[in-house]
Amino acid sequence: MEKKKRFAISPTREEDFPLWYQEVIKNADLAEHSPVRGCMVIKPLGYALWENIQRKLDQKIKKKGAKNAYFPLFIPLSYFEKEAQHIEGFATECAVVTHHKLEKNAEGKLVPAGELEEPLIVRPTSEMIIGEMFAKWISSYRDLPLKLNQWANVVRWELRPRLFLRSCEFLWQEGHTAHATKEEANDFAKEILDLYVNFSENTLAVPVFKGRKSEREKFPGAEITYTHEAMMQDGKALQMGTSHFLGQHFSKAADIQFTDTDGELKHAWTTSWGVTTRYIGSLLMVHSDDDGVILPPKIASIHMVIIPIIHKDETREKVLSYCKKVKETLESIDYHGAPLEIHIDTRDMRGGEKSWDWIKKGIPLRLEIGPKEIDENLLFMKSRIKAHKDGEKLSLDQLEERIVGDLDQMQITLFQRAKSYKETMTFEVSSEKEFYDFFHSDKKGFVLAHFCQDLKLEEKIQKELNVTVRCIPEKMSKPGKCIFTGNKSPQMVVFAKSY
Amino acid sequence: MEKKKRFAISPTREEDFPLWYQEVIKNADLAEHSPVRGCMVIKPLGYALWENIQRKLDQKIKKKGAKNAYFPLFIPLSYFEKEAQHIEGFATECAVVTHHKLEKNAEGKLVPAGELEEPLIVRPTSEMIIGEMFAKWISSYRDLPLKLNQWANVVRWELRPRLFLRSCEFLWQEGHTAHATKEEANDFAKEILDLYVNFSENTLAVPVFKGRKSEREKFPGAEITYTHEAMMQDGKALQMGTSHFLGQHFSKAADIQFTDTDGELKHAWTTSWGVTTRYIGSLLMVHSDDDGVILPPKIASIHMVIIPIIHKDETREKVLSYCKKVKETLESIDYHGAPLEIHIDTRDMRGGEKSWDWIKKGIPLRLEIGPKEIDENLLFMKSRIKAHKDGEKLSLDQLEERIVGDLDQMQITLFQRAKSYKETMTFEVSSEKEFYDFFHSDKKGFVLAHFCQDLKLEEKIQKELNVTVRCIPEKMSKPGKCIFTGNKSPQMVVFAKSY
Repeated sequence: MEKKKRFAISPTREEDFPLWYQEVIKNADLAEHSPVRGCMVIKPLGYALWENIQRKLDQKIKKKGAKNAYFPLFIPLSYFEKEAQHIEGFATECAVVTHHKLEKNAEGKLVPAGELEEPLIVRPTSEMIIGEMFAKWISSYRDLPLKLNQWANVVRWELRPRLFLRSCEFLWQEGHTAHATKEEANDFAKEILDLYVNFSENTLAVPVFKGRKSEREKFPGAEITYTHEAMMQDGKALQMGTSHFLGQHFSKAADIQFTDTDGELKHAWTTSWGVTTRYIGSLLMVHSDDDGVILPPKIASIHMVIIPIIHKDETREKVLSYCKKVKETLESIDYHGAPLEIHIDTRDMRGGEKSWDWIKKGIPLRLEIGPKEIDENLLFMKSRIKAHKDGEKLSLDQLEERIVGDLDQMQITLFQRAKSYKETMTFEVSSEKEFYDFFHSDKKGFVLAHFCQDLKLEEKIQKELNVTVRCIPEKMSKPGKCIFTGNKSPQMVVFAKSY
Repeated sequence: MEKKKRFAISPTREEDFPLWYQEVIKNADLAEHSPVRGCMVIKPLGYALWENIQRKLDQKIKKKGAKNAYFPLFIPLSYFEKEAQHIEGFATECAVVTHHKLEKNAEGKLVPAGELEEPLIVRPTSEMIIGEMFAKWISSYRDLPLKLNQWANVVRWELRPRLFLRSCEFLWQEGHTAHATKEEANDFAKEILDLYVNFSENTLAVPVFKGRKSEREKFPGAEITYTHEAMMQDGKALQMGTSHFLGQHFSKAADIQFTDTDGELKHAWTTSWGVTTRYIGSLLMVHSDDDGVILPPKIASIHMVIIPIIHKDETREKVLSYCKKVKETLESIDYHGAPLEIHIDTRDMRGGEKSWDWIKKGIPLRLEIGPKEIDENLLFMKSRIKAHKDGEKLSLDQLEERIVGDLDQMQITLFQRAKSYKETMTFEVSSEKEFYDFFHSDKKGFVLAHFCQDLKLEEKIQKELNVTVRCIPEKMSKPGKCIFTGNKSPQMVVFAKSY
């Protein structure tokens, strides 16, 4: 009983990881399930994380030459059917609009009316509708490459929604490009994967495996799906986002043709790529501890909270005006291209309660300022990744000098911690027995093993263990023999249970 | 025939305003109709305008204390029904999701399957779903005011879509707030209207009438709808956006209650407010001319285009590197809080063709740079609002000094021009005959007239003339007598045909 009380989140990670995750989100006030089946409500503190992800990724995407645009939410069923694998992949989980108004029936009850001639699918992804427009816009090699991106909501009917990880509706960016050659398209899909990996590791502080998906796991309609996969603290994998080289599948389905330099009419080569609000789920599951969220400073919407300590009414004004001065001083400091964000918590609550509130919300730094601190010019700074009671006394000048360095150090520490966890928890396995023993046990982590990449075998493993090939890593191991069949294996692959 | 050839857009405004509008958008490559009925595709140059509107408005909205959040796309039918006027207002034009998957029928044709127990409405607006969450989050006066905003897509089934003006799906921001008192809520709705008016006039350079809607024209479920209305160049009105004081209608429907300071349980007072991609339509219809778009500099995504003039291959490098230098120099200049955006057009096209392309796209300034200009250090600058062939010769230093001032002057000129048009084309009318004569004729413009605000009379006028009360202006005229009934009229109101 004693031990439990020491943590802000109950249950702890060890006790019940999925429930711990829910409680972390609830205690940090980031999001909640809506009364609409499978859909989430993203609350201000959670949405601020998405806004930061958007702003930073958007810049990087624009630098790759992709421009933002916006395409319709609805896709006519007939378009969807044009690519066989694609429709098969999404048919079981799509919201279908069949009517365009409501009318009262004989009993006075409102019912759908105005049936549509053709049902509309609420976009689960936009290859088909964007492809249709590309076909219209592209006629010559001069129109290529065409690189567009949209920030949008998409809908995939999920039976078991989890906040930020799987929900019926989620937010994402989806990029779509068309190129004149196979090589250029494939290279671009890989370039975008690099962009994602870089963002994930350097901004979210989430280390990943980078590579491609197995034939079984790739996107419906893709030629190659590139992926980055992270390890959560329960040892499960989370697919962070994918970039697809689509070959000519979609350009043939939508008839995207161009006259090449040699005068010949050819089908374009296309790519698509996206990351979602799941990025938020990843950073929560990788960095949080039993006291709640820990935000990597580069993605935090607030870098430091100032907690004014006011014991007597007569000191109130002095303390508050000093807090404002500190806030203004620090907010003039640039932190990776934008001002530091400092929040003064003036709520009418006890100091300890306030501290715990911000600990659970994962704000990197806290600063306590009372009359004593002002008189001594020694401010008491605490860090989210150190013991909550420990702190450091700093003058305002020292704080000004150190704050960016401290935040950068915290960013590195979080990444290194997660990276070392990922490495420690990834095991090379050299026999089928070892493999099955590992996943039958309660051991956590990823398995690296030689695998002949046989589709039926992959299916069997999934059925028996609920384990999939997460990634065929880009950094190839030496060739070897498949641990299941003894057949030739070009390289080891990553197996794991996953979200 | 001679005259027609002088303009880039055919037909001209005079010849066919609606078709001119379509051609302006097409020639500037801003958007097009999608093959999905009623939905538009917003192309990169059009979407860049929306991104600018978003960025600037978002800052202003946040300063009002509203935080961004995200709520579900789908609203269960039963929620929608809770507010009687609201459902009545939207029932005739909403997309209804009835199934959650597709299956092959006996003939092998894909058809909707997995019928939902309760149909879901694709949000036409989010009062009911946000109200539901507010009811959960609000329990005490300490939780008030609660101010949230979301940037989202909404769907209203339109029979006659027009790009940026009416479409089945459009983008908008919708703010929702809850307050402890009627006064505070009503004041906040008015404050937001002021914010919109300010944005419209100062950033879009679109002058407006500001006031409230008549009972007949207000939002379904609102107590008072505040509006800003602009005059297009065909004399018709465009509703720019509205801010609603919702009274307790929605808080009673969704049961948003709080314990007040006096210990009593009370229903909150709510507001909602939004502006949409229609803002883009307004600036296009107000400023463009027969040569295409004219962008107010504060909303333009490119402030100046540099057109390199290269006659011989040996001068190419010299000219291009000088263009880059000019671009870099100018991009270091701050223009209302962000760097100037300068684009070098290196396309392989004739200079004249390029110029016309940017004229039609409405870019404020064009700069032609060839070897001669470099040698003389005299750059040839042309303005979108002056004769296309006229220009000014400026040294780079002079250009640096003047560019912000020139853009600011252009912004003012566009606003003043539109304001003077709006004022010239607004006519006071003092008898029913004059009123009917005006709207029966082919005269363009708004009519100010005393009106008793009788609902049936308003309906009759709409049926007979397709004219509505656009706005009951905030700046009241003196009381008088209704021009239709002779009854008392507290003030004149604005009548017009509208989009």
